[in-house]
Amino acid sequence: MSPPVQPPAADHPTGTFVRRVPEGDNRERLVCGDCGHIQYENPKVVVGSVCRWEDRILLCRRAINPRKGFWTLPAGYLELQETTADGALREAWEEARAQIEIEGVLAVYTITRLSQVQVIYRARLVSPDVSAGPESAEVALFRWDDIPWPEIAFPSVRWALAHYRDSVDRNEFTTRCNPAGEFGDY
Amino acid sequence: MSPPVQPPAADHPTGTFVRRVPEGDNRERLVCGDCGHIQYENPKVVVGSVCRWEDRILLCRRAINPRKGFWTLPAGYLELQETTADGALREAWEEARAQIEIEGVLAVYTITRLSQVQVIYRARLVSPDVSAGPESAEVALFRWDDIPWPEIAFPSVRWALAHYRDSVDRNEFTTRCNPAGEFGDY
Repeated sequence: MSPPVQPPAADHPTGTFVRRVPEGDNRERLVCGDCGHIQYENPKVVVGSVCRWEDRILLCRRAINPRKGFWTLPAGYLELQETTADGALREAWEEARAQIEIEGVLAVYTITRLSQVQVIYRARLVSPDVSAGPESAEVALFRWDDIPWPEIAFPSVRWALAHYRDSVDRNEFTTRCNPAGEFGDY
Repeated sequence: MSPPVQPPAADHPTGTFVRRVPEGDNRERLVCGDCGHIQYENPKVVVGSVCRWEDRILLCRRAINPRKGFWTLPAGYLELQETTADGALREAWEEARAQIEIEGVLAVYTITRLSQVQVIYRARLVSPDVSAGPESAEVALFRWDDIPWPEIAFPSVRWALAHYRDSVDRNEFTTRCNPAGEFGDY
């Protein structure tokens, strides 16, 4: 265990922050009423991948909430000092013990309700040897017609699978975004 | 001004946070020694665009540090509850009073040293009427041969311009990432 460190804003006692528009800005921020320190709030980055082995796609059944028991792609929060591609490789390993090679950026989705940016890669499994990591109840390789659509965890997983299918026969493919009018809510 | 609100971690007095690996995790986090609250630290998202009018590209000379006086693309931090595309539109307006139409995701770069993910679009100016916003000293439309390369603010601006040029004659183009071995340091 390291010695105590200063967490963000922990030198500001409760109640001294207000939401106001700082000078030169155009929206409300968390501002310390004592010293003017601005505590910016930022969207989070999720990285993941649609991974294939021949004509099958890797999915992971979630062992944790939200959406425990439903199927998802190997994906999770990007870490500090990590590239988005390295994050996708790490998540494939952590959630499915899968070794993958990235082929390109399949999609950049924004889930505005969650302030979440998702960078989803298309990837190829190095081998079909996959197994559940600690956050997965099971992992499996599905042919398109066998994908358990009613048990897919999140709308963006359905988007990514559809966008993957559009790209599947192409070495070069155009990166996609949210389907028109869809925001990732259920 | 709104009433005081609770900032992140502001209920944790100085010195109670330690960096340690929480149970079930595999890397050090900021953890409150009193209550176990984990203060996650996350990469930040920058959104921006390479914007063209005919054969010219929009650049903004920075009026602020870092790299004051150098030329950059209209880009900045994504806000909460904002899509990456909307963020790029907002930044084009704020920095260059430019109205743009997005054509696709040109690149996803990671600047690991800064824990920064950059989502850069290719875009078309709706009109050549542009002018400096508050963070720009001036804005201008450059032909490729006139781009002031020694005065470009950041390596990722050079990457984006080069990747833009690769894509310029194509309606469909492949999203790019950091050039091999480059991390955005000078």
